[in-house]
Amino acid sequence: MSAGARIDATPEQLAAVQYDADGLVPAIAQDVSDGTILMMAWMNAETLQLTLQEGRTVYWSRSRHEVWRKGDTSGEVQWVQQAFYDCDADALLFKVIQDGNGACHTGARSCFFRAFGPDQPDQAIQPGQNGPV
Amino acid sequence: MSAGARIDATPEQLAAVQYDADGLVPAIAQDVSDGTILMMAWMNAETLQLTLQEGRTVYWSRSRHEVWRKGDTSGEVQWVQQAFYDCDADALLFKVIQDGNGACHTGARSCFFRAFGPDQPDQAIQPGQNGPV
Repeated sequence: MSAGARIDATPEQLAAVQYDADGLVPAIAQDVSDGTILMMAWMNAETLQLTLQEGRTVYWSRSRHEVWRKGDTSGEVQWVQQAFYDCDADALLFKVIQDGNGACHTGARSCFFRAFGPDQPDQAIQPGQNGPV
Repeated sequence: MSAGARIDATPEQLAAVQYDADGLVPAIAQDVSDGTILMMAWMNAETLQLTLQEGRTVYWSRSRHEVWRKGDTSGEVQWVQQAFYDCDADALLFKVIQDGNGACHTGARSCFFRAFGPDQPDQAIQPGQNGPV
């Protein structure tokens, strides 16, 4: 099991983050080892704080309307190494160590395994295989 | 000037994309050369089609409420090499060649130049310098 870093964000940094009308901000998870973009999900102020405190990504599940501690069910925990917010403070980026096969519920390493374009099978990547990203 | 790739997405691929209540979908731009996440912005169905047709990112500006052909003003065009949609088809990823200094209006290469944590200056990166991402 990998280790995540507890990040002591300042009150100013936390206050800077801009949430949408639903109180959510998009959060990108990137594999720190090779730059692969693993997934994009959403956080609210609570789950951002949990993510920084626990050193692992904790999202807000928009479909289940609940805190989603990534990997609690699947084992595919994302251990946070660094956390960034963008120039407008309305998007987040987490550089992580990805436990398990990958980030995607399909079994793919990255959720972005489907490319636009002709001759792109809708499910080119089988569970357990790495995506092209 | 770099070249972008026209991508002929299938009608099924375009129809799969899920837009939010405002008709928008988050779009991540990643530097194809080294995996740096350059920015995250938004597209609607029209600007996604324009992006795929023109081979450069065209976003929807939520602040200006208009089509935002990235780089028309700044020269910092993003030439699309590959385009992906995620497992839920509610997030997009574009691997691009970034023209100019970078993606960010501050002059930073990446919009994600601010890290959470103590001793993280709010503006660690000066315009024209590369960000830590």
